Amino acid sequence: MSKKTVSIIGSGNWGSVIAKIVGKNVIDNPDKFERTVRMWMYEEMVDGQKLTEIVNTKHENVKYLPGVKLSENVVANPDVAETVKGADILIFVLPHQFVRPTCKHMEGHVKKGALAVSLIKGFAITEDGIQLISNMITECIGIDCAVLMGANLAGEVADEQFCETTIGNSDKKKMGKMLNDLFETSYFRCTVIEDIKTVEMCGALKNVVGIGAGIVDGLNYGDNTKAAVIRLGLMEMVEFGKIFFPGCKMETFFESCGVADLVATCHGGRNRMLGEAVVKSDKPIKELEKEILHGQSFQGPLVAKEIYGMLAEKNMLSRFPLFAAIHTICERKMDPRQFIDCLREHPEHV
Amino acid sequence: MSKKTVSIIGSGNWGSVIAKIVGKNVIDNPDKFERTVRMWMYEEMVDGQKLTEIVNTKHENVKYLPGVKLSENVVANPDVAETVKGADILIFVLPHQFVRPTCKHMEGHVKKGALAVSLIKGFAITEDGIQLISNMITECIGIDCAVLMGANLAGEVADEQFCETTIGNSDKKKMGKMLNDLFETSYFRCTVIEDIKTVEMCGALKNVVGIGAGIVDGLNYGDNTKAAVIRLGLMEMVEFGKIFFPGCKMETFFESCGVADLVATCHGGRNRMLGEAVVKSDKPIKELEKEILHGQSFQGPLVAKEIYGMLAEKNMLSRFPLFAAIHTICERKMDPRQFIDCLREHPEHV
Repeated sequence: MSKKTVSIIGSGNWGSVIAKIVGKNVIDNPDKFERTVRMWMYEEMVDGQKLTEIVNTKHENVKYLPGVKLSENVVANPDVAETVKGADILIFVLPHQFVRPTCKHMEGHVKKGALAVSLIKGFAITEDGIQLISNMITECIGIDCAVLMGANLAGEVADEQFCETTIGNSDKKKMGKMLNDLFETSYFRCTVIEDIKTVEMCGALKNVVGIGAGIVDGLNYGDNTKAAVIRLGLMEMVEFGKIFFPGCKMETFFESCGVADLVATCHGGRNRMLGEAVVKSDKPIKELEKEILHGQSFQGPLVAKEIYGMLAEKNMLSRFPLFAAIHTICERKMDPRQFIDCLREHPEHV
Repeated sequence: MSKKTVSIIGSGNWGSVIAKIVGKNVIDNPDKFERTVRMWMYEEMVDGQKLTEIVNTKHENVKYLPGVKLSENVVANPDVAETVKGADILIFVLPHQFVRPTCKHMEGHVKKGALAVSLIKGFAITEDGIQLISNMITECIGIDCAVLMGANLAGEVADEQFCETTIGNSDKKKMGKMLNDLFETSYFRCTVIEDIKTVEMCGALKNVVGIGAGIVDGLNYGDNTKAAVIRLGLMEMVEFGKIFFPGCKMETFFESCGVADLVATCHGGRNRMLGEAVVKSDKPIKELEKEILHGQSFQGPLVAKEIYGMLAEKNMLSRFPLFAAIHTICERKMDPRQFIDCLREHPEHV
């Protein structure tokens, strides 16, 4: 078997953490992977110097993951076509709104038979409704796409605190071992399963529920109420899967990408923080985003908006009162104090 | 249909909260329930006065639920036989080690065809292995027993913060409406299901996992690691159910008694607090219990010990590394810092 070349598309906070893991794993498996890992980086200037140059000399993403060293074999590149050329594995880790334009730049450069692995949380919106990002990647560049999602708050993974993750792919027998070799470490345990769509759907929807958990925190409710929000959110995720992703497996909700990621997001995630801010301030969401994240974007409100539109069109909002209320509150069209009332009469209680 | 008389056996912290809810609900449903709710109380002296007398004059359990008023129709009684005489519904809410002796005192006084509802977290140990408390109650006093468990940290329910709970019973059609009338309020939403054993098993085992969550907190791990403990704990609960309670339903783990109670316990529960203390101090568990709870007892270590013994006897410890480690750590026979190592090679990862 020939050695596989790995490239990473994206280099934000989570992308840099994954570069740290993957960079080390390819060194530790020299018979399986080529040593150099190219990482596409949107070029920015930091203190008068190009960020790619800083990364390639200091081996540290000083802007998005300061204080954490990457191995020297991770090489930042501002040219996406060059980054993906000849690669066997393309790891996608960038905000979901940038996927399509970035794929455009890859056209004609992606190796036939390569495998994409998406770490992206979100959906794409098409004329037919919502689409999984993994499907969009396949549609754009014509290769298979696996996904990796789990209870993986980036800072803690960078810090090498023990956690789990879930890799969804279409052929565990063929690719499971290789995906495991690429991503697993003693502190980052991977479970490979054959259910791409549920893994990916959970990764997108948990950020919506995370806002709800933050709203409840902002309203000074305790752990019981938050647990109810988490559970009702999970039930809406299950219902969403049943309706829009037929064939999604119930067991998958018990994986790290399901209940564990939901719990971590609802306690330590950025979208939780946003939910709390929405209660404690009356600024528009865009302004809160700027104040809290300084340049990065919240995925939760975007996903909430996308699914709200789609559910409204299909006349299904009443089946998803938690998702619906979170969007309406984010839009400042509902008082956050009404949030709990939306849960009292939840279809789960009927 | 004749009106039902309700009695409560137990009057600690949770018992008093339930007395508050049930006391009000019977007043609000005068055509369904007799107004007076008798509540058995182990007699103690508080500031030179009998606690039953204080409760019956002040309408407040000043020792176990200070600051919260009960309705005047809740009448404390130190005589358990008198308390249960003629009652149609017997709500059991006392530490699990007291159930059998308390039932002894009821002999000959329990109305035929009455229904017990157990709110007790734990298992009984018999010669044949573990037994559900609901089964033990049925065995002791010869009546059917339903159960009520959920993400219900007592202080928050007393405070009327929104939460959910699960009622397991054997005949939803026959008893569901009555149970709902008795327990549900606008802030305490009940879901009635026909799966007693899973509801009850979750209520016992979550306290063991809660200690594990506390250990992780004590070791200063973050939300990812805690989410992994919660998920692996949940998987061991599922496995436990499959082996020892055949017929337990997967859906039940999605109810409040399952994932929600587990999450609340692992963040705000007393057993979590104990787990943290076990890491931060080297005192024996009994001493920590005294320091933290001043007289009440932790259920987690007791359940952990019971299931450890049973699993060891059946040579099954390796299938439950999290449960096993928690017991061993509580016994001070393992360094808490080894806890994470037990999770790395969890059977879920093989």
